[in-house]
Amino acid sequence: MIAHIAIDIGGTRMRAASYSPTSLTPIKINRIPSRVLGTTPQIRLLDLVNSVWPDDEDVESIGVASAGPVDHEAGIVMTSPNIPELNNFPLSDYLLQHFDVPVMLGNDANLAALGEWKYGAGQGHDHLIYFTISTGIGSGVIMGGHLLTGSRGMASELGHTNVLPDGPLCVCGQRGHLEAISSGTAIARWVKAELDNGVPSTLSKIQPVTARDVAEAAGQGDELALAAFERAGTYLGRALADFLHIFNPSIVIFGGGVSKSADLFIEPVRIAMKKHVISPGYIENLIITTAALGDDSGLIGAQW
Amino acid sequence: MIAHIAIDIGGTRMRAASYSPTSLTPIKINRIPSRVLGTTPQIRLLDLVNSVWPDDEDVESIGVASAGPVDHEAGIVMTSPNIPELNNFPLSDYLLQHFDVPVMLGNDANLAALGEWKYGAGQGHDHLIYFTISTGIGSGVIMGGHLLTGSRGMASELGHTNVLPDGPLCVCGQRGHLEAISSGTAIARWVKAELDNGVPSTLSKIQPVTARDVAEAAGQGDELALAAFERAGTYLGRALADFLHIFNPSIVIFGGGVSKSADLFIEPVRIAMKKHVISPGYIENLIITTAALGDDSGLIGAQW
Repeated sequence: MIAHIAIDIGGTRMRAASYSPTSLTPIKINRIPSRVLGTTPQIRLLDLVNSVWPDDEDVESIGVASAGPVDHEAGIVMTSPNIPELNNFPLSDYLLQHFDVPVMLGNDANLAALGEWKYGAGQGHDHLIYFTISTGIGSGVIMGGHLLTGSRGMASELGHTNVLPDGPLCVCGQRGHLEAISSGTAIARWVKAELDNGVPSTLSKIQPVTARDVAEAAGQGDELALAAFERAGTYLGRALADFLHIFNPSIVIFGGGVSKSADLFIEPVRIAMKKHVISPGYIENLIITTAALGDDSGLIGAQW
Repeated sequence: MIAHIAIDIGGTRMRAASYSPTSLTPIKINRIPSRVLGTTPQIRLLDLVNSVWPDDEDVESIGVASAGPVDHEAGIVMTSPNIPELNNFPLSDYLLQHFDVPVMLGNDANLAALGEWKYGAGQGHDHLIYFTISTGIGSGVIMGGHLLTGSRGMASELGHTNVLPDGPLCVCGQRGHLEAISSGTAIARWVKAELDNGVPSTLSKIQPVTARDVAEAAGQGDELALAAFERAGTYLGRALADFLHIFNPSIVIFGGGVSKSADLFIEPVRIAMKKHVISPGYIENLIITTAALGDDSGLIGAQW
């Protein structure tokens, strides 16, 4: 029997799993924190892969989903959010040398889009947009059955498009990007600013406020928390109208931590999207849904 | 010998040409106004095709580039700007019945992108964005060697993306779209508003002002005219930064009437684009140029 190993490198944790070609249930799966004092992420990544190496199967390939931009062709991590040791690191060569198995490296949101397309909510949809909304907003696009990569693998950064000129500062240094308004971080930041302005809320007791806190407060009817998700959803819906004009997908899938609160923002998304499309044809048969593979979209998409 | 016929249906004129498979120089070419009182565009289109039908070659296919949205699969013109008789008209069936030759219908900007990619400025670039800037802003995108069409053929409407919330009204009914700020119509409209505000200019003697008038005045150093192109270019460059994040192309090509004044807006485009990209990698080897096939991009791209 043969097996494939998939790795998902995120800012806070690294995960790995081994899969047989016939099942989405891993043979072995493991996760570790991304950074630990006194050891390098590289060494710990080797240990992680060893820990999921199957006992009886031959490993045919290793696929790696990495947060942030990657050079897909060269197999180099360009920037790894929160793991500076991996910036400009030739990860594919490193793993190939240690395990003598071909390695494929991709951006985590792109591979999550592939995972949802092949095995998840997007099955049968050859024109698909996937968003992962958590700390930031990542995205992956399938067009005509092909993953959108661009000339240097830097395409489909939909979170870094302007929705509000001179708007809030984005981690990339630009202003008014979708990520700076509708990500989990941006939701929490907006709530904090409103609290500082004296807006009453049950959240005033919490320090620091996270998007998860805001979601919990919204679930209990807190008006500021509800307004925060409505604002994020409205901007997301307006941006989505433009993405429909650009890509004309048949399905849009939301993944990532914030998507677990989809019931709090999907209606504002729909209202703003409907208001801003130039023709009803863009939304007539459009499906808007959440990731079917949950946190495993990227890991499952990293198999090849 | 065999030949292909290509048709380009625009708001003001219809053009047709016959081509042998080995040359971009037409066997025959002809053009007529799109609308004439006392006859239908359909009948005149048949006359136009007959007028370019080759004497000695067998016609193998007819390709039609039509302005505005089309249903590519069904061969139906959805909306034809300025030719209401063609709205929702099954053009492919109509031509097939009359000429007994297979017909392919596409959006003109999409087919112009194909033309520039195969035979023009975009040769060798499999990740390409083409803009036609004239009355409006049309666009076509080649990604990984495939024309971006979307699930219903309605993709790549890059002119209808928001660059200025609550900005100028677009012909589509939305506000602040790129087309409403950087098209020829928008340039002329902005100049008119400035003139109405009392801004001095040599253009104050002209009624009504067109984008061509503005270009001529700019060529003679008129400050208002120069400012109009700088404004249009700056917004175009900012939007382009986002399109680079989305598509990561290796080349951007400008066609259409306004692109003949590229020297007036390309520098503001470059400055704004450079200022707004999230990584220099997006512009390092990026080529920005004008259409090599000029007005024939769409006609040549309609061959198949």
